[in-house]
Amino acid sequence: MPTGMPTANSSAGHDDHSWLWVQIKAEARRDAESEPALASYLYSTILSHSSLERSLSFHLGNKLCSSTLLSTLLYDLFLNSFATDPDLRSAAVADLRAARERDPACVSYSHCLLNYKGFLACQAHRVAHLLWRQSRRPLALALHSRIADVFAVDIHPAARIGKGILFDHATGVVVGETAVIGNNVSILHHVTLGGTGKVGGDRHPKIGDGVLIGAGATILGNIKIGEGAKVGAGSVVLIDVPPRTTAVGNPARLVGGKEKPSKHEDVPGESMDHTSFISEWSDYII
Amino acid sequence: MPTGMPTANSSAGHDDHSWLWVQIKAEARRDAESEPALASYLYSTILSHSSLERSLSFHLGNKLCSSTLLSTLLYDLFLNSFATDPDLRSAAVADLRAARERDPACVSYSHCLLNYKGFLACQAHRVAHLLWRQSRRPLALALHSRIADVFAVDIHPAARIGKGILFDHATGVVVGETAVIGNNVSILHHVTLGGTGKVGGDRHPKIGDGVLIGAGATILGNIKIGEGAKVGAGSVVLIDVPPRTTAVGNPARLVGGKEKPSKHEDVPGESMDHTSFISEWSDYII
Amino acid sequence: MPTGMPTANSSAGHDDHSWLWVQIKAEARRDAESEPALASYLYSTILSHSSLERSLSFHLGNKLCSSTLLSTLLYDLFLNSFATDPDLRSAAVADLRAARERDPACVSYSHCLLNYKGFLACQAHRVAHLLWRQSRRPLALALHSRIADVFAVDIHPAARIGKGILFDHATGVVVGETAVIGNNVSILHHVTLGGTGKVGGDRHPKIGDGVLIGAGATILGNIKIGEGAKVGAGSVVLIDVPPRTTAVGNPARLVGGKEKPSKHEDVPGESMDHTSFISEWSDYII
Amino acid sequence: MPTGMPTANSSAGHDDHSWLWVQIKAEARRDAESEPALASYLYSTILSHSSLERSLSFHLGNKLCSSTLLSTLLYDLFLNSFATDPDLRSAAVADLRAARERDPACVSYSHCLLNYKGFLACQAHRVAHLLWRQSRRPLALALHSRIADVFAVDIHPAARIGKGILFDHATGVVVGETAVIGNNVSILHHVTLGGTGKVGGDRHPKIGDGVLIGAGATILGNIKIGEGAKVGAGSVVLIDVPPRTTAVGNPARLVGGKEKPSKHEDVPGESMDHTSFISEWSDYII
Amino acid sequence: MPTGMPTANSSAGHDDHSWLWVQIKAEARRDAESEPALASYLYSTILSHSSLERSLSFHLGNKLCSSTLLSTLLYDLFLNSFATDPDLRSAAVADLRAARERDPACVSYSHCLLNYKGFLACQAHRVAHLLWRQSRRPLALALHSRIADVFAVDIHPAARIGKGILFDHATGVVVGETAVIGNNVSILHHVTLGGTGKVGGDRHPKIGDGVLIGAGATILGNIKIGEGAKVGAGSVVLIDVPPRTTAVGNPARLVGGKEKPSKHEDVPGESMDHTSFISEWSDYII
Amino acid sequence: MPTGMPTANSSAGHDDHSWLWVQIKAEARRDAESEPALASYLYSTILSHSSLERSLSFHLGNKLCSSTLLSTLLYDLFLNSFATDPDLRSAAVADLRAARERDPACVSYSHCLLNYKGFLACQAHRVAHLLWRQSRRPLALALHSRIADVFAVDIHPAARIGKGILFDHATGVVVGETAVIGNNVSILHHVTLGGTGKVGGDRHPKIGDGVLIGAGATILGNIKIGEGAKVGAGSVVLIDVPPRTTAVGNPARLVGGKEKPSKHEDVPGESMDHTSFISEWSDYII
Repeated sequence: MPTGMPTANSSAGHDDHSWLWVQIKAEARRDAESEPALASYLYSTILSHSSLERSLSFHLGNKLCSSTLLSTLLYDLFLNSFATDPDLRSAAVADLRAARERDPACVSYSHCLLNYKGFLACQAHRVAHLLWRQSRRPLALALHSRIADVFAVDIHPAARIGKGILFDHATGVVVGETAVIGNNVSILHHVTLGGTGKVGGDRHPKIGDGVLIGAGATILGNIKIGEGAKVGAGSVVLIDVPPRTTAVGNPARLVGGKEKPSKHEDVPGESMDHTSFISEWSDYII
Repeated sequence: MPTGMPTANSSAGHDDHSWLWVQIKAEARRDAESEPALASYLYSTILSHSSLERSLSFHLGNKLCSSTLLSTLLYDLFLNSFATDPDLRSAAVADLRAARERDPACVSYSHCLLNYKGFLACQAHRVAHLLWRQSRRPLALALHSRIADVFAVDIHPAARIGKGILFDHATGVVVGETAVIGNNVSILHHVTLGGTGKVGGDRHPKIGDGVLIGAGATILGNIKIGEGAKVGAGSVVLIDVPPRTTAVGNPARLVGGKEKPSKHEDVPGESMDHTSFISEWSDYII
Repeated sequence: MPTGMPTANSSAGHDDHSWLWVQIKAEARRDAESEPALASYLYSTILSHSSLERSLSFHLGNKLCSSTLLSTLLYDLFLNSFATDPDLRSAAVADLRAARERDPACVSYSHCLLNYKGFLACQAHRVAHLLWRQSRRPLALALHSRIADVFAVDIHPAARIGKGILFDHATGVVVGETAVIGNNVSILHHVTLGGTGKVGGDRHPKIGDGVLIGAGATILGNIKIGEGAKVGAGSVVLIDVPPRTTAVGNPARLVGGKEKPSKHEDVPGESMDHTSFISEWSDYII
Repeated sequence: MPTGMPTANSSAGHDDHSWLWVQIKAEARRDAESEPALASYLYSTILSHSSLERSLSFHLGNKLCSSTLLSTLLYDLFLNSFATDPDLRSAAVADLRAARERDPACVSYSHCLLNYKGFLACQAHRVAHLLWRQSRRPLALALHSRIADVFAVDIHPAARIGKGILFDHATGVVVGETAVIGNNVSILHHVTLGGTGKVGGDRHPKIGDGVLIGAGATILGNIKIGEGAKVGAGSVVLIDVPPRTTAVGNPARLVGGKEKPSKHEDVPGESMDHTSFISEWSDYII
Repeated sequence: MPTGMPTANSSAGHDDHSWLWVQIKAEARRDAESEPALASYLYSTILSHSSLERSLSFHLGNKLCSSTLLSTLLYDLFLNSFATDPDLRSAAVADLRAARERDPACVSYSHCLLNYKGFLACQAHRVAHLLWRQSRRPLALALHSRIADVFAVDIHPAARIGKGILFDHATGVVVGETAVIGNNVSILHHVTLGGTGKVGGDRHPKIGDGVLIGAGATILGNIKIGEGAKVGAGSVVLIDVPPRTTAVGNPARLVGGKEKPSKHEDVPGESMDHTSFISEWSDYII
Repeated sequence: MPTGMPTANSSAGHDDHSWLWVQIKAEARRDAESEPALASYLYSTILSHSSLERSLSFHLGNKLCSSTLLSTLLYDLFLNSFATDPDLRSAAVADLRAARERDPACVSYSHCLLNYKGFLACQAHRVAHLLWRQSRRPLALALHSRIADVFAVDIHPAARIGKGILFDHATGVVVGETAVIGNNVSILHHVTLGGTGKVGGDRHPKIGDGVLIGAGATILGNIKIGEGAKVGAGSVVLIDVPPRTTAVGNPARLVGGKEKPSKHEDVPGESMDHTSFISEWSDYII
């Protein structure tokens, strides 16, 4: 965590956002000076903008546009959405912090803002979700389609997602229509929160706060992954996972056993500890 | 199923196709009226066209073009292919119906036509396959490459695919050169129908009619997934699966046991029932 | 292997590279003649260039550009990188040979050069890695981001990768910051070489020479996959795998057992034998 | 003048502007209905926008952008300029009226808004002029350069231009840095309001209200074209022209003679009468 | 005139057109072979097409497209127009011949087809004129606007133009709504065929067969330039010019005098003789 | 002239060029700092480049590219041309100086480099001329066509042009195949150096050193405009003009009379004095 950053206990909100935007511009300015070949990119995406929302709207508009959905149209849409719903900005700020704090490969806020497809897909999803809630569904679905094409991240616009989310690497993530993701969740790539058939209605997983879902995990059906639970990479989960337990394997089992599963103390969605369960994984016998 | 749709028993063919195109235009017109920001997109992709084939050719040409493969060239290619092979149209119609009927998140035919990367990748593949059969292999492979880049769906142009196919979500699907997929099959994202080494020849799976393959399943080698079989999410299958049985797990086992596997009555490729086998999955012990 | 190709024992280097470039142009010329619709593409990407490096720089520049990172800028960057580091060229040559020799679906060198997203992503990664080593990290990360968006292949610019690599299909591959990949390795799609949490430092797998990693395998942590080892499709590996053994399953076990695993003689990264272990996979019971 | 239009004597301003925008949308809607091939264009440029300013900003942003000056950047610039200076809107409205009333080939307001390069160049110039006055000269000159490239209309950003201007056809118009153009002026294509050498300072023509300047006329130096004067096509004028007189020829002479020139009563900038002087043009002797 | 070309007396029509297209492809093939850097361009614009109409439609679609009027839409429009009206093709052929025969700088038919903005603007105008006659006026005017922007050639879609037309250099040409141009006319750049005020109705010049109009000439009003007449560069003409006479100057006078003007025998629109009148131009006294 | 600039007498060459490039970068840096909205543009076009040639090649490549002639191809072409012929650089430097010294509206060297279409068209022409001399005529003509489309400046690639040229405003300039332009010439917009018919061979004007040609002047035929002569705006010249005399009018006459024309002392191509002849223009009688 860079020095000078407000502590987690500070009353966040406007001050915090201001600090972050100042920090992002400072990072971009430093990079533009050290790397002239990148300066044009940094000026157009960050340094020429007056706020995080404008920078993000510009960047997403240019990333998600196509020959039939113009960048100007999308830019407008993002600007209007950020102006309509201030939560979009605070969610973006929380997600930037999540990446910076949890991912050791994240070297700066601007790095995440510009380059993390998981971060960008998530912010674009939040706008699609706003449109969905406003009953502008055809537009929400068109935006969803662009996100799925450009980032290979497929989050249904109706899915509800909390703040402080890290979609790490993100390629191949699929999140279904009635899925709900809590706060401070970390989800690796290739994770599926899917449905269970052609029945409509509430049919996708509910992910509690602080959950960590490893790469390639497949979670299907209207089941509950309890607060602070952990799902191992490559697991296939079709039944509820209790809070602060770990499910691993295909099909997934609880570490420590179904009856008396081991409970961990930390918040895996924040600690990102993927593999501490190994020693307990009974038949892991290489 | 929207009211007014011809029943499944009606003699399909031209009338059916006409009905579908009329329906798609009506949907697009309704959406254009309710959402002016999307009207331009809907007019350029659907409402300005005189037929489903022209709409699809235009949309795919604009989606798949690059700075070195121009949209005009691809548009031409698609138009000519649809004119050459009427099966392309009937397959597109069957695939649209499949998405509309099997995927509860599919709110309209136009939604699928415009936004489903699985649908679009499949139609573009059908054209690449036509080129392959016409011995225009370099062009087929160039088109294949564009589909793989744009949609992250990698279907070898030689692969043979039936009608009424649903590639749901579709990101990460890989289908090898000698794979065959029957009719009315549903395949979720991240599914691999792969080969088994560097030996050439017939080396990829054969998928029977009505099969359902869950997300992330990996099926390798010249094996047979019998008619109406089901492969669970995340399964790894390297041996034949008998008709109307269910294979799950890594490595996959038959639900009910190898000797006397449970047989289901419905067609899972159509019912999309992913998870009814759970209670029978012996060591699924969360 | 086409006739006229220098034998493997010949002193490779410049002669070999010349032979390959001559061969690629011959292939492209043949295809341009047989397929006028593709001739423009073949001339712009291959036939108008004087060397493999220039062709590759041009092709990557046009593939990876965006409205904020211009093709001319990227083209410059690739040309300069190839001029700076001759290893980039020899690595590209070795990778082209790897695809041609190991993948039966690879019909020509030009096919791989133009269309294989794994090949293209790997060459672009090599440039990003050069930038990283030159301490031009913001530019390396921007390039990394473009590769991840365009090819859905996410290789951290710091990851070290040998020569003769085949990323087959490639969609969804994720390779972490401190991962190391040896020579003559073959890696299928959806493979993850990931970390184990938010701890920094050396935290990703080390893949020995000649290793073969099957589709969808997830390998996590600073572990060692020994020389000539094989990891089955869909496996989840969190512990070292000894040389010339095979790990399969979720969690992965050694074929033949932990104590006395079966050892194979061939180099699976080259033979691409994915499935010969089946008969030994104890509970594979379909 | 279409029925229902407020009379010239009505208190213009907001009501008038509203009427015009309603009218433009009605025209565009009518055209979109009768011509589906154009509907996409009409929706993206007019029908999806909530005001004339937004429509114009969008259209100019897309017309004037280049690979190094993005449409999103220009769109932002135009939107901000219209928000900053309400005169830009009233000038656009007056110019639209001028084209509709004076040019018999102008079939509708939307026709002018979308297609008249003179109208579009003039509105973009007004924004460049605002930037110039705000001392943002490098940006003003960059915008000027785009206007000159795209429309072949070269108006220095410092030039001051009144309202109700018709640049008819417009190609090749050049207006120098210290030129001033009054209200209700009509200027045909290829007209030059130029300087007289390399001396700086006030060196370009001053054009009075209601002047009409014929095609290809060249007016050089800090001279005055009096109110309601007329300059014949192809004339070369280097000396003041008195109000309500006509100058024709190369070099230009006053119709009726220098001593007692004929005076006309109408306002030629509005009547657009180019040729009524012929009978008086003494040596016009074909 | 290249050897092997059918003589002027041959029954033209289909054979002639075939010969020309074969010739154009031969030229393009020769150029592609000698200049690899241009081969991609030549293949995409000429060598990949099966007919002159398709090549021209492709080239114009790519030249005239914009971010809001897609190349695919324009390509479709041009293809349909050529299919609807065979005169478009024969006019294109006649215009190609005109350029090749009259302009010594025209080195080949393909040079004209690809590079002559006058030729391209004229063919696009013919399509706009067809749309105008079909009462598709908004689309005709949108196309007109693109031609005026891209080529700086402004021909009203209602203007009627014969065959065998050479617009040489073409920049700045303006042709009004009710203008008529006969066959075998040559018109240099900056020529205006303009109206005379804001009166509607028939108000533009009528240009007879075989007329030559020099650079920068301005011809205004519903006047008649007689068959085989010549208008000198920079002339301003507001009165009829009799057949086979020459008008020069500003205002224009007849060479030889109004009463008994010199009559020439050749067809200046074909001979392109601009300046033979000099010796007779009485006060030309340098 | 900015302070610090080497005096005209300094031995120019490399030092001079270095000074100029340093100056241009300083100007661009100053503008980027004062105008963040333009910084991206300034970095991509100037500040990220290591030399004037690279900057110019990049800028022209992006300005002149089209969907069928890619920016990367043109960039390559320009870079190679500048490397082949060092005169291209010294000519660009001389032209930049000419604009800066002669045009009071030219506020900086970078302003000219980025925005002057006359300067840019001239540098691109110099490359087309190099290609012409290298017998790469189809490529030269394709480049010529792009220049004519983008800048509305039409200079035949065979035309020979000296150094220190100012094409001021430039729109509509036409220079024929056998035209020759000396050093330190200034040419305003709409100027034609044209031929006289369809006869081939040497048929265009020869313009001496230091000539000034006013806006809209038309000079036709293989005639000689003597050193230091001046041609008035709108003049039509078909006969030789002696050195240091002034020709004006349509048809042009010598100021002072044919027998004893006034001779001026200065070099009008440098002084840019357009109008000092007025008092002597006998019938200029407004």
